[in-house]
Amino acid sequence: MMTGKEYIDSIRKMRPNIYKFDKLIEDVVTDPVTSQEIYSVSRSYDYCTGTDEKLKAIYTYKSALTGKVTHRWNTLMDSMQAIIENANVKRHQYRQSGTTQGSTCTGWTGLNALWAATYDMDNALGTDYHQRLKKYWIEQVEARCLAMAGAITDAKGDRSKTPSQQVDRNYNLHMVEKRADGIVVSGYKIQICGVVGAHEIICVPGGGYGEADKDFCIAFAVPRDAEGLTIVECRMPSDTRYAEPGGWDVPHIEGNCTQSYLLFDRVFIPNERVFMCGEYKYSGSIIGNFASIYRAAIGACVAGQGDVMIGAAINLARANGLSMKVFQNVLNEMAINNETTYSTGIGAIALGKMHPSGIWLPAALQAHLTKVLVSRIPTDTKYRCVEIGGGITETGCMPSYKDIESSKYGKQLRAALAGGGGDGIARAKMARLVEWLVAGSGLSGCQHGGGSADGGKLAIRALTKWEEFAADARRIVGVSADAFQEPGKN
Amino acid sequence: MMTGKEYIDSIRKMRPNIYKFDKLIEDVVTDPVTSQEIYSVSRSYDYCTGTDEKLKAIYTYKSALTGKVTHRWNTLMDSMQAIIENANVKRHQYRQSGTTQGSTCTGWTGLNALWAATYDMDNALGTDYHQRLKKYWIEQVEARCLAMAGAITDAKGDRSKTPSQQVDRNYNLHMVEKRADGIVVSGYKIQICGVVGAHEIICVPGGGYGEADKDFCIAFAVPRDAEGLTIVECRMPSDTRYAEPGGWDVPHIEGNCTQSYLLFDRVFIPNERVFMCGEYKYSGSIIGNFASIYRAAIGACVAGQGDVMIGAAINLARANGLSMKVFQNVLNEMAINNETTYSTGIGAIALGKMHPSGIWLPAALQAHLTKVLVSRIPTDTKYRCVEIGGGITETGCMPSYKDIESSKYGKQLRAALAGGGGDGIARAKMARLVEWLVAGSGLSGCQHGGGSADGGKLAIRALTKWEEFAADARRIVGVSADAFQEPGKN
Amino acid sequence: MMTGKEYIDSIRKMRPNIYKFDKLIEDVVTDPVTSQEIYSVSRSYDYCTGTDEKLKAIYTYKSALTGKVTHRWNTLMDSMQAIIENANVKRHQYRQSGTTQGSTCTGWTGLNALWAATYDMDNALGTDYHQRLKKYWIEQVEARCLAMAGAITDAKGDRSKTPSQQVDRNYNLHMVEKRADGIVVSGYKIQICGVVGAHEIICVPGGGYGEADKDFCIAFAVPRDAEGLTIVECRMPSDTRYAEPGGWDVPHIEGNCTQSYLLFDRVFIPNERVFMCGEYKYSGSIIGNFASIYRAAIGACVAGQGDVMIGAAINLARANGLSMKVFQNVLNEMAINNETTYSTGIGAIALGKMHPSGIWLPAALQAHLTKVLVSRIPTDTKYRCVEIGGGITETGCMPSYKDIESSKYGKQLRAALAGGGGDGIARAKMARLVEWLVAGSGLSGCQHGGGSADGGKLAIRALTKWEEFAADARRIVGVSADAFQEPGKN
Amino acid sequence: MMTGKEYIDSIRKMRPNIYKFDKLIEDVVTDPVTSQEIYSVSRSYDYCTGTDEKLKAIYTYKSALTGKVTHRWNTLMDSMQAIIENANVKRHQYRQSGTTQGSTCTGWTGLNALWAATYDMDNALGTDYHQRLKKYWIEQVEARCLAMAGAITDAKGDRSKTPSQQVDRNYNLHMVEKRADGIVVSGYKIQICGVVGAHEIICVPGGGYGEADKDFCIAFAVPRDAEGLTIVECRMPSDTRYAEPGGWDVPHIEGNCTQSYLLFDRVFIPNERVFMCGEYKYSGSIIGNFASIYRAAIGACVAGQGDVMIGAAINLARANGLSMKVFQNVLNEMAINNETTYSTGIGAIALGKMHPSGIWLPAALQAHLTKVLVSRIPTDTKYRCVEIGGGITETGCMPSYKDIESSKYGKQLRAALAGGGGDGIARAKMARLVEWLVAGSGLSGCQHGGGSADGGKLAIRALTKWEEFAADARRIVGVSADAFQEPGKN
Repeated sequence: MMTGKEYIDSIRKMRPNIYKFDKLIEDVVTDPVTSQEIYSVSRSYDYCTGTDEKLKAIYTYKSALTGKVTHRWNTLMDSMQAIIENANVKRHQYRQSGTTQGSTCTGWTGLNALWAATYDMDNALGTDYHQRLKKYWIEQVEARCLAMAGAITDAKGDRSKTPSQQVDRNYNLHMVEKRADGIVVSGYKIQICGVVGAHEIICVPGGGYGEADKDFCIAFAVPRDAEGLTIVECRMPSDTRYAEPGGWDVPHIEGNCTQSYLLFDRVFIPNERVFMCGEYKYSGSIIGNFASIYRAAIGACVAGQGDVMIGAAINLARANGLSMKVFQNVLNEMAINNETTYSTGIGAIALGKMHPSGIWLPAALQAHLTKVLVSRIPTDTKYRCVEIGGGITETGCMPSYKDIESSKYGKQLRAALAGGGGDGIARAKMARLVEWLVAGSGLSGCQHGGGSADGGKLAIRALTKWEEFAADARRIVGVSADAFQEPGKN
Repeated sequence: MMTGKEYIDSIRKMRPNIYKFDKLIEDVVTDPVTSQEIYSVSRSYDYCTGTDEKLKAIYTYKSALTGKVTHRWNTLMDSMQAIIENANVKRHQYRQSGTTQGSTCTGWTGLNALWAATYDMDNALGTDYHQRLKKYWIEQVEARCLAMAGAITDAKGDRSKTPSQQVDRNYNLHMVEKRADGIVVSGYKIQICGVVGAHEIICVPGGGYGEADKDFCIAFAVPRDAEGLTIVECRMPSDTRYAEPGGWDVPHIEGNCTQSYLLFDRVFIPNERVFMCGEYKYSGSIIGNFASIYRAAIGACVAGQGDVMIGAAINLARANGLSMKVFQNVLNEMAINNETTYSTGIGAIALGKMHPSGIWLPAALQAHLTKVLVSRIPTDTKYRCVEIGGGITETGCMPSYKDIESSKYGKQLRAALAGGGGDGIARAKMARLVEWLVAGSGLSGCQHGGGSADGGKLAIRALTKWEEFAADARRIVGVSADAFQEPGKN
Repeated sequence: MMTGKEYIDSIRKMRPNIYKFDKLIEDVVTDPVTSQEIYSVSRSYDYCTGTDEKLKAIYTYKSALTGKVTHRWNTLMDSMQAIIENANVKRHQYRQSGTTQGSTCTGWTGLNALWAATYDMDNALGTDYHQRLKKYWIEQVEARCLAMAGAITDAKGDRSKTPSQQVDRNYNLHMVEKRADGIVVSGYKIQICGVVGAHEIICVPGGGYGEADKDFCIAFAVPRDAEGLTIVECRMPSDTRYAEPGGWDVPHIEGNCTQSYLLFDRVFIPNERVFMCGEYKYSGSIIGNFASIYRAAIGACVAGQGDVMIGAAINLARANGLSMKVFQNVLNEMAINNETTYSTGIGAIALGKMHPSGIWLPAALQAHLTKVLVSRIPTDTKYRCVEIGGGITETGCMPSYKDIESSKYGKQLRAALAGGGGDGIARAKMARLVEWLVAGSGLSGCQHGGGSADGGKLAIRALTKWEEFAADARRIVGVSADAFQEPGKN
Repeated sequence: MMTGKEYIDSIRKMRPNIYKFDKLIEDVVTDPVTSQEIYSVSRSYDYCTGTDEKLKAIYTYKSALTGKVTHRWNTLMDSMQAIIENANVKRHQYRQSGTTQGSTCTGWTGLNALWAATYDMDNALGTDYHQRLKKYWIEQVEARCLAMAGAITDAKGDRSKTPSQQVDRNYNLHMVEKRADGIVVSGYKIQICGVVGAHEIICVPGGGYGEADKDFCIAFAVPRDAEGLTIVECRMPSDTRYAEPGGWDVPHIEGNCTQSYLLFDRVFIPNERVFMCGEYKYSGSIIGNFASIYRAAIGACVAGQGDVMIGAAINLARANGLSMKVFQNVLNEMAINNETTYSTGIGAIALGKMHPSGIWLPAALQAHLTKVLVSRIPTDTKYRCVEIGGGITETGCMPSYKDIESSKYGKQLRAALAGGGGDGIARAKMARLVEWLVAGSGLSGCQHGGGSADGGKLAIRALTKWEEFAADARRIVGVSADAFQEPGKN
């Protein structure tokens, strides 16, 4: 296994191809745009190789492919418990850093989703994608201890049209040329988490498509610094605060989830890294597998964010001279919120089943449900955190750290911020954490992150047994089916 | 195993000791106060002995005590999956009858809760309760194919006082005399579900008590028709409709959950049926086990109720000449509600662990969470069902079945109720089902049923790691623990 | 003005034409089906003629037509304040009886709605409806001190079709014959409140219709006991409890709102009582006026219901030995709910304007808003009332009054229900009040009462300035209108 | 009246005493920290002197003191309608700029609150504060066409202690010296809106205090640039974007609400500007008046913010190639939210009454209710705006404007952002508006702005007639008061 330091070294060696503010980032390890993400991932590597057995139990797992204990995020989710631990890793990472990591999460899910889908493809179509994936997994992912991002969301364009109907085919990532030794791809994947901390990226189709869109049905692995791939970082709320020397208007040492726009311009993907290429009938299945795994685990992710908000709220109550008991009702509701998304996600996992390829697939209905809840419930948790924290948390309604440290009037400001004691800085820092979580770059998007709730609702619609329930109701009151017919159906 | 008919015969033979409206019910099988409950339970027996393999898989299970396949509700919940199936039985029963059953549910939970607690008691105290329970279970419960109710809630009296502080010790069930061959008990258990369809009742303490209340720390099994036990049925909304000849203002053939007040007046319990007697330190553990199992499964119970409401809503939309698509958003929210309580409950189960005695215990935090959600979420489901169903469902705002069938003006009323077609009676029956579910006797109490949500919130408070979360937040912003102290703690 | 006793005498003299359970009600004053409603209305009459000046200020008002002080419910709402007092009457009535009255509310609104619409019709079309209405109002309504019900909702039939497209024209009330001296009408008005306590009924069209449906565009006043009119009472949850001698499982002395199905079979309406007859262009305006007035005031109505629930909850907390302070958070939320619907309604009134005919018309947007809120918010109030009241309130989970008074076991039941003191009966009565309010016949339908929320939402859609808001947003970011076009609009 | 240009000139002439980032702002008119606020206020001045009669009707009003038409924000609110127009000004300002103004809002409210309180003080105590205030109002406020901020919130310190108990008296603004010609004050007012755009500031006590805290019971007017007053601006989310040359990651031309920390260090206030000085019994009354006026109008304020969110959502739906009809349900809920806070506020105004001093005071209960709703409801509006707008709005998940305009890859990014058409910039700008509103500096704090909701809940608790409601419930069920007693009260 790799240590955090080795991980950082390996990332530093990669070709610079990440931009922000129209400038190339020369060293992602030290640039404030990217350093927090990389620090966060390195810590996960350190948990694997460190001496804390409790952390090792969370962050490592025995590879089903090689039998060796390795970084958990590079393993097959080969049992119900393995996938519950996926959720637990996410909650733990969030509690460590106040945000998600991306680099050790979406790629992992992508690999597992492809594991099942390629198995099905090979069985049905005689392709060899599953073997390619297995080889890639063992020789690259596991052997090189990779951090892997996963890319699904395309730029999409006009939402009322399919990829091939768009005025620009680049709106969606697609194959532009097929060669003997591989494929050439172009197009845009957007809002991709954790790319800057990843060695490679797993790309899968952004939706389930039909034959007309088969060029858009491609899945592959690509190094983050591949030729032809340009990466532009998203600007997040208050993100320039990271670059302020000595500043603490954002937390600086724990982590930050980046989001990238990936611009593929004729990137060559060799065959051994291609895991789908035109088999459109299986594009929906990849997305389906991905969503089931990812959305079941996302409940733990936002629960972790909520845990940190509980913690911040307790500290701020005390900073105001008050006991946490004063806010026990509110704190309880925050805990209820956190455990709800966590527990529906675990429920989705427990209701799943083994796929013949050897991975556990959570139940789709409850996984999509979890996504819907995840898009809604944290809104309330944030509200309650601000309710306890007070006006200085809502919009960080305080002077900047420079003012608070000012030689002219800093002493007065620190007194104004002192609350129940101290010199005001600790309270201000804690309030900035809340601002960062509810209106800053720590607010990673749980409303749309992991895909929109609308997609979840469509899935719920498709998976609910409406007609069975209608029949139950008729049986209970003793009337026949023909008493109530869908208009136009007779 | 027993058939439904055999079950009914066995119930009929019992001593009449159930009253309602100040009258003794001579034959519980035919009296409209009780017949629906008994019919519902008999159907569960039939599922076990019938030919439908899918139903048998739900309703039967291999006994961990004897190795024989038997009625599932009389088995040890000896694995995670076994307890998930407990939840599934509940959801299925609700979908069958539009309500709960009680008789094949709370007693089952009580037996399992005692299984673990008596194991711990015997190990720690050298008692023989676990062996007594095992013997009783094999020779009585399993051998005689019993339907078992469970009784927890005491009358309580003044909520600011403990049992021994009350002006009347009968407010809570307690031991009044200890004899060589058994104990004599008196007091009131109230709001107990499914007693009329049960052969026996498992009684456990209503709370976790200290030494001063040790006489209230008793657990035992008692036949429903024991000498000294008087049972009075609760009056439910619109309950007299069951007694209307030919009436259909309540559904008549599927089920109805009864609730009873049990008045114990010096009832003798022989030692072989006593499973706790004064060991107050374990009273909390019985309640805790019971709550974990029951509250994890209750999410499935109300999901089943919600399923029936979805079904009724779809039928009523069509009855009004409208497609269910018109209400797809609303129906989706109903499904989201149902799957949320179901899935958090399953999550609680999956996060549980084996007890050394051989039963699976769901995680307490998420089980209590499920109870809290169960007390809240169905309110919204009912609202939405009525939203789709319209004014005739809200309060059953229609003339009675007698009027609708009137020779004077029935034809006109049937036209007025016809909606998009038919003669109005089918629509009226469906609307009465909704009234029954939201404002009738089918409204079994999910807000307070299974204990109040307040108890759940207390448990959540006790089980949440508040200080760990506070420490996480401090670490993330880099301030020390002494910056934020609980007032009065320095 | 009329006293309560005179009112009762006047009602008793009317022709019996009201049925329930397929039986004619011979004396509405004493029959338990109708007596509560009549008692409630009589009390409003007594307030007008009594000695309590505070009550007289609420219940009487100076007639704008005759200058005499009269029953407020028979006056023109000729100022903003007059219509605020309409709201205050409703809230007071609810607090008196725990329910609405109907007989002194919907007819009043109907008269005022017609006042404005007939004024407009006469001006535009040269008809004389306004003068007819004025004469009827002065000579009948005011002179005879009438209690007036109002009828809007038709049976409707297939919701995807207009009245003239239905398979049966009777689904909607309509003119079947026009004679020199009047019109003949047939059809069904359903779910009409307070008819049994009213002398006359104001009928208006159930919607805004076009030319094809002009026979359905009729408005008139009709005596409750007119020839050809048959009235069938709705069966409400637990309604037979009213007929139980000495019973107290429903409150017996304060009021109950009835709901009726009106079956018109060739009822003759003389011209002087006809206020619209085919002028379809004004049918929407009547409904619009009615909705603005009624829905602005309905916020006060449900606030009054909520006030009673607050009161019941406080009493029940104390009955359990607890201070109301224990539940202060929950009680506060109940008060917030009540004042929200009250205050949005008052806001709607204040944002209204004078109609040229001399009545104040509340703002339609905020009036419909209030209806939408009224359909939602009381659900939460009920939930919280039950939260405080406990399991015995949710479904009235207690034995019947007969059992509680039983000579055999009543003493024990009274002890079981005693709570923090007393003999249990007071607590049981208070719990039955809550059951009656949340799952009994006191649950008058605020979700669909006053029309469905869906209609309110359609009005909100029509009245909101969507495009103005879109233009604001574009101006703020500095982009032109053509950047964002509605699909299909270019 | 003053034009916008004259206003700007007058502000520019003031002494620089505003800091941010530890630097003095030399010219508030051009500095990006303050210019947006000043531009916004200048526009309100222009509305008063411009040619648009509709705008003049909103922004001007006849002074009750001089009879001249003047800037509305400098007038007495001398009728119900006058105060409704206060609300309408706020909603209009928000729709113009996407945020509040502060400078023409809180000072206005402060003046009116003092108008009533000084009247009462003079009557009771024989002071001459009311005359001072009148003179100041006529000669300064009205004659000089001032923009006025209002300052209430003190730094407070330990929330469990009163001002005089704090370790540092400066935590709350207070009198440090009384001289013949005036008073000297010190201490901190924090989170004060619109100071940078105001000529003067009205300061009032931060709470209702007792005798021990009478030095903290002071009210006065002070020029923004008074000697001894240092002002430090709050840092808001993403606020440095305003300083980016040519940047459009925040809207640049319409407005921005500033928030300031006011550090008073021995500031001298001449007597003619002092309106309270130690009369602690009236401190609560000032706060009460202020809250009633301000909180009644705040419902309109956040409604205006919601209007802009509706507009942004519609534009973004279209930008994605979709009709707004697709989201009609969601948009309707946003409109319901906006009209709810608006209408409860108007209700509070309409339920108010004239104070003997000649101003209209909204009803306190409903005004505090509005504050509570305002703290909650916009959370949902924001959620729904982001629901429609998609992932790019949630956290502004797009590259910066510099990247989108990049010569290297800007073309590709613009394509990736194009949505249903155009070159992506218009869509990105609109999405940045949403980010600014939900997670940027446009998110002016409605949760804690205008004081916290907790204060509102305390007021609701004090103003609700709990015991009357409890008595109603007892009367309805026919039990006497002694049946249910508050524990410890007998």
